Amino acid sequence: MGAEPDARFHRMILNRLGEWGLLQRIRRRIPAPSKSVSVGIGDDAAVLRTAAHRDLIATTDLLVETVDFDRTGGSFRSIGYKALAVNLSDVAAMGGRPVAFLVGLALPGRTPVRAVDEIYDGLMSLAREHRVSLIGGDISASPKGIMISVTVLGEVERGRAVRRRGARVGDRLYVTGALGDSRAGLEILKKAKTKRRSKPSGIESRLIHRHFFPEPRLTLGRLLGRRGWATAMIDLSDGLASDLRQLCDAGRVGARLESDRLPVSSALKAYARRMGRSASDYALRGGEDFELLFTVKTTDAAAVEAAARRTGSTITPIGTIVSRGCGITVIGAGGREAPLTLRGYEHFTHPW
Amino acid sequence: MGAEPDARFHRMILNRLGEWGLLQRIRRRIPAPSKSVSVGIGDDAAVLRTAAHRDLIATTDLLVETVDFDRTGGSFRSIGYKALAVNLSDVAAMGGRPVAFLVGLALPGRTPVRAVDEIYDGLMSLAREHRVSLIGGDISASPKGIMISVTVLGEVERGRAVRRRGARVGDRLYVTGALGDSRAGLEILKKAKTKRRSKPSGIESRLIHRHFFPEPRLTLGRLLGRRGWATAMIDLSDGLASDLRQLCDAGRVGARLESDRLPVSSALKAYARRMGRSASDYALRGGEDFELLFTVKTTDAAAVEAAARRTGSTITPIGTIVSRGCGITVIGAGGREAPLTLRGYEHFTHPW
Repeated sequence: MGAEPDARFHRMILNRLGEWGLLQRIRRRIPAPSKSVSVGIGDDAAVLRTAAHRDLIATTDLLVETVDFDRTGGSFRSIGYKALAVNLSDVAAMGGRPVAFLVGLALPGRTPVRAVDEIYDGLMSLAREHRVSLIGGDISASPKGIMISVTVLGEVERGRAVRRRGARVGDRLYVTGALGDSRAGLEILKKAKTKRRSKPSGIESRLIHRHFFPEPRLTLGRLLGRRGWATAMIDLSDGLASDLRQLCDAGRVGARLESDRLPVSSALKAYARRMGRSASDYALRGGEDFELLFTVKTTDAAAVEAAARRTGSTITPIGTIVSRGCGITVIGAGGREAPLTLRGYEHFTHPW
Repeated sequence: MGAEPDARFHRMILNRLGEWGLLQRIRRRIPAPSKSVSVGIGDDAAVLRTAAHRDLIATTDLLVETVDFDRTGGSFRSIGYKALAVNLSDVAAMGGRPVAFLVGLALPGRTPVRAVDEIYDGLMSLAREHRVSLIGGDISASPKGIMISVTVLGEVERGRAVRRRGARVGDRLYVTGALGDSRAGLEILKKAKTKRRSKPSGIESRLIHRHFFPEPRLTLGRLLGRRGWATAMIDLSDGLASDLRQLCDAGRVGARLESDRLPVSSALKAYARRMGRSASDYALRGGEDFELLFTVKTTDAAAVEAAARRTGSTITPIGTIVSRGCGITVIGAGGREAPLTLRGYEHFTHPW
């Protein structure tokens, strides 16, 4: 098609641009793939050359408008970013290195072309950061709302993928980053939707940003996988309480959490205080943190903590693995130990 | 959950079963994966062990209700079947062997549980036939209509993937199976939707069946790839006229088609006669055939035809590759040669 006066198409809706025009436009936004991609976009399928002695990792996630995300307060850019980020987080949780990804995108015919540009900008900015190549995709119309499905392929040293199972009694339990921000951000967005109010405060903006732009913990996940340090690992998508249960069920163990050790940001502390709630409740029950939860043998703990510091990753010991019979408990303020009750996000629980 | 009285859940809708119940239910339908799957469903990501000296193939397709399929006349089973079939067809067109797949499924909360069972039955029956393992997936609610996104991973001998480009002047052009049935089937379905009428005839049922249950040509695709016989290959999704243009553009060549050689089924012949149209028009313009279009050096043609016969695959020579300057032409009845005009299926061309 050659150079086009981009501004002319900016306000156009997809129905007018057409599928062919849209595909051409998307292709121009995709940089040349990395060396491991023998055949990229534009053939029946992509071809990857995987290194010898590596296992292949594959994961997929689907984000649906009004269910998994909402245009209110967010940007089209964040839709693309997050759809890739949650998949990269899964690769991190296996101790792997992401290599390539495929995108399925369904869009209502009245979607502005600009929205598609921004979705791809969000995808590609994160892809560039982690050197992941877009190798395939499909696009379709949608009867209602945007849907985006991303599949990420990665690699890991043969036999070194870190499973959810594998935690042993006595192992230390760690988490990356800070927990609960995303949930607080979502809460702020929902409130803003029901009552018209002024611009979010600085603190609120930080929490909202964490909801839309989670950072996949690839450097640390990779380190834990390569060195064989993590005995078990999972990424936090449904919330610590729920995902810890998954890790414990998979390993047939229990866990004892220390609630005052849960890492929370200063923004969340300030927000929780204002709401008259405890920050650790957000940390325990909040979903979509996309931090890594992992277990380490006590004999490796010092080495892991030192390595995390060297790579600039924040990790926090939050408890220990105990026998299955002891269940999953939380030690709260004042040293009281109580069973951890489950509460996570469920699709299909409310009719619409 | 243990054994459940299946019938109790059969008529339930997803909103009542809940996400957890649904995932449990789906998992029970998934057989143990093949040996090459080190980690299957149930962890953060799947892990595949790929053989040495193989390249990895990856492809994804998205099917959206009311856009790519319609419940009218079809079954939930066909939705699952076709979502996998179109991806397997892409792997066939690369000369590869499919190994594993991932599924993203978005469903309205009022979808009956039975529908999900049937979608998975459709997926898994085809998966079993071709020994492809389901290794991952994601499920979400949908605000309107069912959406299914399938990603297939496959393998091919290193450097042996068959590209769309690669056709050379003088090569023979072949197609598998018969063309145009799917388009005729879709036409019958659309008519049945507007005017209530009696059950479809035997001929009509055959055409409709071909629309819902395309057969991916994996055996032949694999043979052509392994032996290095196909100089170029593409699968027919948009229709011969459109996909031949893709193949010619990719290889910077032209083609001369002989329209009376286009393979058409007896059902299509009978249907076209009744409609007062030419069967070869359906063959040329019909989409969603999912047959393979490929080119072969004249010196290999006899060997390819013999090998196809041995494997029980129908292939038909339909023309030759000519220089780009000659363009793409069709020799019609009476020997008249005319340029082939393009017409394919386009998303986003009609507002809804």
